[in-house]
Amino acid sequence: MHLAQESFQVICEDPHCAARCGILRTAHGEVQTPAFMPVGTRGSIKGVLPELVCRTGTQIILSNTYHLLLRPGPEIVAELGGLHRFMGWDGPILTDSGGFQVFSLAQLAKIDETGATFRSHIDGQRVVLTPEGSISVQEMLGSDVAMVFDHVVGLPNERTVIKEAMERSLRWAERCKVAHSRKEQLLFAIVQGGLEPDLRIRCAEALINLGFDGYAVGGLSVGEPPQEMYRILDVTVPVLPRTRPRYLMGVGRPVDLIEAIYRGIDMFDCVIPTRNGRNAMAFTDDGPMRMRNARYERDPRPIDPTCPCPACSFSRGYIRHLFMVKEMLGPILLTLHNLTYYQRLIQRARSAICEGRFCEFRQEMLSKLAAGNDANDT
Amino acid sequence: MHLAQESFQVICEDPHCAARCGILRTAHGEVQTPAFMPVGTRGSIKGVLPELVCRTGTQIILSNTYHLLLRPGPEIVAELGGLHRFMGWDGPILTDSGGFQVFSLAQLAKIDETGATFRSHIDGQRVVLTPEGSISVQEMLGSDVAMVFDHVVGLPNERTVIKEAMERSLRWAERCKVAHSRKEQLLFAIVQGGLEPDLRIRCAEALINLGFDGYAVGGLSVGEPPQEMYRILDVTVPVLPRTRPRYLMGVGRPVDLIEAIYRGIDMFDCVIPTRNGRNAMAFTDDGPMRMRNARYERDPRPIDPTCPCPACSFSRGYIRHLFMVKEMLGPILLTLHNLTYYQRLIQRARSAICEGRFCEFRQEMLSKLAAGNDANDT
Repeated sequence: MHLAQESFQVICEDPHCAARCGILRTAHGEVQTPAFMPVGTRGSIKGVLPELVCRTGTQIILSNTYHLLLRPGPEIVAELGGLHRFMGWDGPILTDSGGFQVFSLAQLAKIDETGATFRSHIDGQRVVLTPEGSISVQEMLGSDVAMVFDHVVGLPNERTVIKEAMERSLRWAERCKVAHSRKEQLLFAIVQGGLEPDLRIRCAEALINLGFDGYAVGGLSVGEPPQEMYRILDVTVPVLPRTRPRYLMGVGRPVDLIEAIYRGIDMFDCVIPTRNGRNAMAFTDDGPMRMRNARYERDPRPIDPTCPCPACSFSRGYIRHLFMVKEMLGPILLTLHNLTYYQRLIQRARSAICEGRFCEFRQEMLSKLAAGNDANDT
Repeated sequence: MHLAQESFQVICEDPHCAARCGILRTAHGEVQTPAFMPVGTRGSIKGVLPELVCRTGTQIILSNTYHLLLRPGPEIVAELGGLHRFMGWDGPILTDSGGFQVFSLAQLAKIDETGATFRSHIDGQRVVLTPEGSISVQEMLGSDVAMVFDHVVGLPNERTVIKEAMERSLRWAERCKVAHSRKEQLLFAIVQGGLEPDLRIRCAEALINLGFDGYAVGGLSVGEPPQEMYRILDVTVPVLPRTRPRYLMGVGRPVDLIEAIYRGIDMFDCVIPTRNGRNAMAFTDDGPMRMRNARYERDPRPIDPTCPCPACSFSRGYIRHLFMVKEMLGPILLTLHNLTYYQRLIQRARSAICEGRFCEFRQEMLSKLAAGNDANDT
């Protein structure tokens, strides 16, 4: 664990809340935190060349063990030079372990102490994924940050189900740590425990005892109200070590990022900016814009005149046209816009934290975003 | 027609064949000829940002009156600053007149001396397109080169049908010239006449008498064997004035470009590089590669190690993977590769012409491409 001592450094903390800025050091370079990771599920941020991903301000991306295990298979990725070379991304990559995808995508998943046996959602082939197998795949992919393989359950759920899954996730985390051998690859644990504060705390403490390079909060944003998620962060984050990065998995909307940063979260991944972009939704400080709306038909203005992304060199009218005629360039442009929006939001959060004014920034953004959402509902 | 005197200049001619290099001067800059125009049917080269289109070596693009007339409508394009501003392309744009699309796409097209009445292929709405209407739309779009509205018929066809359509196209060309009022927009005529040499010659001579900024050869590559097309070029091109650009519409494969340049053609447009790219076909000097082929699964080499396009920074294995998992980036990368291939082919042709060795270049390329096609058939 020689890298672990220096793999994360807090560089400033807002004195008025738990928000902090840091640097995550990986084998493929540094990441400023708070950081947002675009999702490149199958070895590609959908529709975007790596050089354009970079221009959105993205410093680290996420890819998925589950998807790459099924296609093209980790042996092929390794043979083609590892995931960085494969997908043409020289910066840091975090790989998810597959736990969440087994829960959300796999068919007929059978989970026992050994691991998960399931049918591929693509062709129905039988696949086995164990903690050791997930680590092995992530090592073959060569990501900079690997995640432990966890047992994810839906919410709401019975306490006994959540408790058993959490305890199994703990045992699996230990097996992942034992199995993990690539020194230059960081290994993050995942805190489970549903909406049960005491289970979250017990899980976090047990993982900290095992010792990992970073700690994720998992199993959230799976249907529960946002306030429930914030409540769980309120009890979980304070237990996590100050000196390690904290990663809220699969979250979220701009407001969720701000609320989580406020509570001390350092890293995020989410498909919302890319998926919603492909569906014609453009994020702005004044709430999301639905670009198929007829109100934009003759609108010569860019989505956001302050935005430096390629989409904002075009008129709203043009972007609406692209979606109305189903041109690929529409989804591409809004993907770029939304990723740029997310990265600029995160950059503004970092500046606010270092200047000790994150609380004001949070209030201002929450008001704006809420007003925008109201306006778009009318 | 004050622009016409200087809008095209032959800068060198190969002494051994009809191939020549020239410069086409437009309101949005110069184009070196021979030139290949990628097709941006609905105001977008599918999946490619304008800055990336530019990086393929593209100097001029084509867009379609028919499609933009239906959606979003020329008034909206004009209101949003004209086609260049609308689609973010500052270079030259040629617009097709809609004649070919009425023939190939419109439903229940009824064509009489006035023009064409048809049902939109999108929503069945009734649309009328006349020579004057087509010119008016092209003037509203603000393209640099407008095409006359012609009556296109399929091949093979009866001589009387071809003759009537050609004669009507001549009368329409005259109406287009009368209707055309934007001085900074060039107007090109279209030679029709099917596979009948005498009709082609009569049509060309009549159009030359009317006087246009350039002359296109239309109604080819609609099902006839390539040798028939070359034969028509052999009789038509010599009739066209040396001092005007010659544009072979809707053509073609790499071999067709070489054969047409050899016969004195200066400009081309075709969907083959973009459409075939979206369907996983990559062009190379050694013939097309079908990137879904299992032989590329573990192939670490780029499609072409000499190609500077973004696709050729990736392995064949990665590009195959993108197509197998249906990632948008696959079509995007092969579109960029194929456009780059076409533009480099054209650049090599220009060099060969100016160095008086186009005949050797032609022989060399035809042998290579033929060998590649044979290899891919086995």
